[in-house]
Amino acid sequence: MPEDVQHAYAKSGDATRDLEAVISLEQPRINAELRRHTADLPEHARAPAEHLLLSGGKRLRPLLTLLTGRALGCGDESLYTLGAAVEMLHAATLLHDDILDSAPLRRGRTSAHVLFGTVTTVLAGDAMLAKALLLVSSFGDPKLTACVSEAVMRTAEGEIAEFARLRDTSVSREEYVRIITGKTAWMLRASCEIGALLAGAGQPAARAAALFGLEMGIAFQIVDDVLDYYPCEETGKPRGGDLREGKSTPPLLLYLASLPAEQAGRLRADFESGNLAEEDIETLCRAIYEGGYAGQAREPAGIHLAGAAEALAVFPPSPERDLLDKMRFYILTRTV
Amino acid sequence: MPEDVQHAYAKSGDATRDLEAVISLEQPRINAELRRHTADLPEHARAPAEHLLLSGGKRLRPLLTLLTGRALGCGDESLYTLGAAVEMLHAATLLHDDILDSAPLRRGRTSAHVLFGTVTTVLAGDAMLAKALLLVSSFGDPKLTACVSEAVMRTAEGEIAEFARLRDTSVSREEYVRIITGKTAWMLRASCEIGALLAGAGQPAARAAALFGLEMGIAFQIVDDVLDYYPCEETGKPRGGDLREGKSTPPLLLYLASLPAEQAGRLRADFESGNLAEEDIETLCRAIYEGGYAGQAREPAGIHLAGAAEALAVFPPSPERDLLDKMRFYILTRTV
Repeated sequence: MPEDVQHAYAKSGDATRDLEAVISLEQPRINAELRRHTADLPEHARAPAEHLLLSGGKRLRPLLTLLTGRALGCGDESLYTLGAAVEMLHAATLLHDDILDSAPLRRGRTSAHVLFGTVTTVLAGDAMLAKALLLVSSFGDPKLTACVSEAVMRTAEGEIAEFARLRDTSVSREEYVRIITGKTAWMLRASCEIGALLAGAGQPAARAAALFGLEMGIAFQIVDDVLDYYPCEETGKPRGGDLREGKSTPPLLLYLASLPAEQAGRLRADFESGNLAEEDIETLCRAIYEGGYAGQAREPAGIHLAGAAEALAVFPPSPERDLLDKMRFYILTRTV
Repeated sequence: MPEDVQHAYAKSGDATRDLEAVISLEQPRINAELRRHTADLPEHARAPAEHLLLSGGKRLRPLLTLLTGRALGCGDESLYTLGAAVEMLHAATLLHDDILDSAPLRRGRTSAHVLFGTVTTVLAGDAMLAKALLLVSSFGDPKLTACVSEAVMRTAEGEIAEFARLRDTSVSREEYVRIITGKTAWMLRASCEIGALLAGAGQPAARAAALFGLEMGIAFQIVDDVLDYYPCEETGKPRGGDLREGKSTPPLLLYLASLPAEQAGRLRADFESGNLAEEDIETLCRAIYEGGYAGQAREPAGIHLAGAAEALAVFPPSPERDLLDKMRFYILTRTV
């Protein structure tokens, strides 16, 4: 580990500040690696890929790969390449996701789909997916390839399941967790597991790394879905995207369960038929947020992060393990 | 090799008949393998996958894997699994291709996109791609994964390049070959190379297998583009699809080059602006076919198939090598 990074890792005190210090320290190297591999993409795939990849992002997934790998004893610089590969896989799924999200109800954000068209966006996603898998297979370990291939399949599975249940308020708690496990948690699981595999970790540690990533991923998406009901002043983003797109997530479902039958029936009918007016959406977000349903929906994230802590306990003590632990706190309390 | 198959392989005489005998002998096993792995797909991805995979097809790619593998000494039954994987990769790219092809100009065929919607089709393609890569990585040889990952990337590259040049009649001969090398030949190249890799072939034989597949793939697509101008009675398919979709292929380009400047200019303008009427398309196809431009456009396929023969000469003599050789003849002369 470079000395400046080591120094940043050794800091203690405020978890979010510590983590942000490491993020801003590692980001330039991760981004350089991403730029390098994006430049290798086929000509027409490059623009959509760069639009998505090089316009920001916390690089949570590569960071998980780096920290898990190092926590389990890997000093190899190629952790950055592996981290870049997983970020590219994530970006590829986002490109395809953009097609879903630029439904008529989607507003306020120029997605790749809109800028580059459906066909180029689909194919650029494919090229990026393949490029990332090529990067992973260059490591010569079939376990790495199997791990990320499975994650890609599970991600698609989760997204398809979510799409199949759009505008459907009968989604159970179990189904919701299954959907977000697919669409989000499997890729975070893979991000951690490949770090452990590159570190040559034994079965117990590799399994713990995978479980840590999985629990972190579930918690991350729970919080993400909750933040969609937070006031714009807190998150910096317009709220109500999920209501517009017809996604049934816990804040809405808890609110519906709290309403008198008739009122719930009306809201359910409006949401399911896509008849919510723009002003209704703002009112509804406020009611859900101020009524405490967003807060209530955040609670299960704590349970998954406790599971993540248990998994982390298998790792030997290290500055990276401490940072992974801080990441748990960050995921639970983040507002952006 | 099972005895009945061995018997069929030993037949000689008419190349097409021999090949068709082997195709119909191997298809049931290939299809059983495809059914088995398609059943493993995530629930909502299964319907589009089955629509595409289980509704026919010659299984050219798995057949190439089988024959190349056996020609180079592989008696392993898992060649069928590898063949199924490459057919699934092909099907995944076709699912995504369907989105391109169901542009307003597309007629006459119910594509997956139309039946299942863009979102499900994109995601089902992703799931299938990942499932196929997972199958390949289960062989534990990173060279196999690298080979198919690269083929997926090149396929996307070719498709994007083709899309970027739609309705553009300034496509040069070199660009045309580059496009079809990407969108078709790389996957046939991989189909052969993975067979050689599973057979544990040395560098020269593996390289020859890859080159054989590449040349076969280029020839296959040249003929495919030519057949699009053949009368329906010969191919069993309505002609003129490429004219409708705006694809500039050699038959059209050769015809344009033969016309007086003014007439060529008018046709070019109509084609490039998408203003060809349905009756113009039929007239144009007839003029191109009867004028001999389709036949002329087929000629370069012979050159690539000669390259394929040279590559094949590196293989030791065997019934499978003879069949691969017959496949060359089949590709050159096929009308369906």
